[in-house]
Amino acid sequence: MFRRSLFGLALLAATGSSALAQVDPLPSWNDGAAKRSILDFVMRATTAGGADFVPVLERIAVFDNDGTLWSEQPIYFQFAFAIDRVKALASQHPEWKEREPFKSVLAGDMAALFAGGEKAMLEIIMATHTGMTVEEFAKTVEDWVATARHPRFNRPYTELVYQPMLELIGLLRANQFKTFIVSGGGIEFMRPWTEKVYGIPPEQVVGSSGVVKYELRDGKSVLVKEPKVEFIDDGPGKPVGINRFIGRRPVLAFGNSDGDLQMLQYAAGGAGLRFMGLVHHTDAEREFAYDRQSRVGKLDKAWDEALQRKWTVVDMKADWKVIYPFERK
Amino acid sequence: MFRRSLFGLALLAATGSSALAQVDPLPSWNDGAAKRSILDFVMRATTAGGADFVPVLERIAVFDNDGTLWSEQPIYFQFAFAIDRVKALASQHPEWKEREPFKSVLAGDMAALFAGGEKAMLEIIMATHTGMTVEEFAKTVEDWVATARHPRFNRPYTELVYQPMLELIGLLRANQFKTFIVSGGGIEFMRPWTEKVYGIPPEQVVGSSGVVKYELRDGKSVLVKEPKVEFIDDGPGKPVGINRFIGRRPVLAFGNSDGDLQMLQYAAGGAGLRFMGLVHHTDAEREFAYDRQSRVGKLDKAWDEALQRKWTVVDMKADWKVIYPFERK
Repeated sequence: MFRRSLFGLALLAATGSSALAQVDPLPSWNDGAAKRSILDFVMRATTAGGADFVPVLERIAVFDNDGTLWSEQPIYFQFAFAIDRVKALASQHPEWKEREPFKSVLAGDMAALFAGGEKAMLEIIMATHTGMTVEEFAKTVEDWVATARHPRFNRPYTELVYQPMLELIGLLRANQFKTFIVSGGGIEFMRPWTEKVYGIPPEQVVGSSGVVKYELRDGKSVLVKEPKVEFIDDGPGKPVGINRFIGRRPVLAFGNSDGDLQMLQYAAGGAGLRFMGLVHHTDAEREFAYDRQSRVGKLDKAWDEALQRKWTVVDMKADWKVIYPFERK
Repeated sequence: MFRRSLFGLALLAATGSSALAQVDPLPSWNDGAAKRSILDFVMRATTAGGADFVPVLERIAVFDNDGTLWSEQPIYFQFAFAIDRVKALASQHPEWKEREPFKSVLAGDMAALFAGGEKAMLEIIMATHTGMTVEEFAKTVEDWVATARHPRFNRPYTELVYQPMLELIGLLRANQFKTFIVSGGGIEFMRPWTEKVYGIPPEQVVGSSGVVKYELRDGKSVLVKEPKVEFIDDGPGKPVGINRFIGRRPVLAFGNSDGDLQMLQYAAGGAGLRFMGLVHHTDAEREFAYDRQSRVGKLDKAWDEALQRKWTVVDMKADWKVIYPFERK
């Protein structure tokens, strides 16, 4: 009875409800196997004296960002930021009009840009993400987040976060889990807004990074972003990033693509209770539908492994009542 | 009055006292400029509406470890660990008897070892810190911490932490500061015990690191420590490490040697209220006395800059009533 009450209290805290009755901590999730697997996991992890109890210090939960906590179509939002930066900086770089991949970006020819492959993308990222101090870059990101709009939804990108995942993060935090983002995206692109949007502070964001260099400029200490990749937090890099930043094996990991496979395997490899989840994008009407053949967020091997190992696979269309917070009445 | 009460409550929380009267949150600090500068900083930072108020999210405090939170003489404790590991592993490496620097270590000839310089030290570190999984390594550290004894004090190394600094960390945490270690020492050497000893969890420990590699071994996911340096969190590396792991400029930084200078400069370079502190080892009787000429923990340039910029310099002999927790009655 006592254990049940504690869990109920945590659920109340998760939803911020002041009602005395126990409320649904995941109101945007339809009843189904995915929702039940989450509630079962949290109940087991927090039942003191139970076989699956997880000590508070071990309650580490990691979430991919692109396609797991917010949308990633038609292009990664960080790449939309980079393209907007190329346009904003073009007047300072007249040579870009004649030079690829900038020429295609400025002409709005995305097909030509994508034809340039990863090399072209990296060049765009380097030109827009380096050469300034980390604080100057953070300001640029903040300004973009405040003004840019998604082409399909015509809303700020940070409104295109998944309401059901916000509820899951809240439920975990109310039950003393520490929640981390572990993303292939740039760490300095995410940190300026993750606290406001997810309640996840900068130091709980793990991501890809470039080299930064310490300098004294007129006696003032600054860190300058250099055009050199330091760490790619994707695929096998995700367990490496988790070890580097968090130092413990997570008990819960949630992703949506093959880039999350090793992170899920790493969470699965620990002793005791585990939760591995994948978001499957099945809702072309409310969001996007893509998996095995997608250029962005390809879900193929990780899906097969999830099915084989009975990890939780969320079917967005079937499992989520609401996708985005703004859909709620 | 209200503000004062809040501060008082935080002080009570810091010391864990149940008394209703306000108690001294730093009982092991003698009254003096250092203690007053700390209390003044915390009061200003937490006074809502005051000119120096620091929002909770910005309350980032960073501490060097060796010589700032625990002793570092006669050799860095991590190096004592490495030497003990060489001895423990010697039977599996018969070739070490004839090969430097292992030969000197096994013969107990520290002078010969130090004559080998950084190259010899790095070789010892690599031989004892790599080739196993991160979890196997953590277990080795835990076992060593539980059994090894400091040659002078004949106590576990983790008892040689500074009681006044534990009180400072507690005071900061009670006032909603997030406390981090930022050490030149190995991140995986510290993380197994910092939670127990300082109340600082693994993910709030920043340090030097080696490359780790993700592998599946018989289907089980592991991270293997490779003999390659990844990051040296010392000198100009400290602001870089702070940016990478924490993502914000600290408002408080405490160190004790020239390796901490750039971290202190970086904290000093932010806007608003700041606190920069140095521990000066002046007590040969109770601990150790060393500064400008020391091989370990050299304090020279950072001391000059601290004096010039009026940072707080703690004189261990004069400012600390007690050095180690075990001295308390």
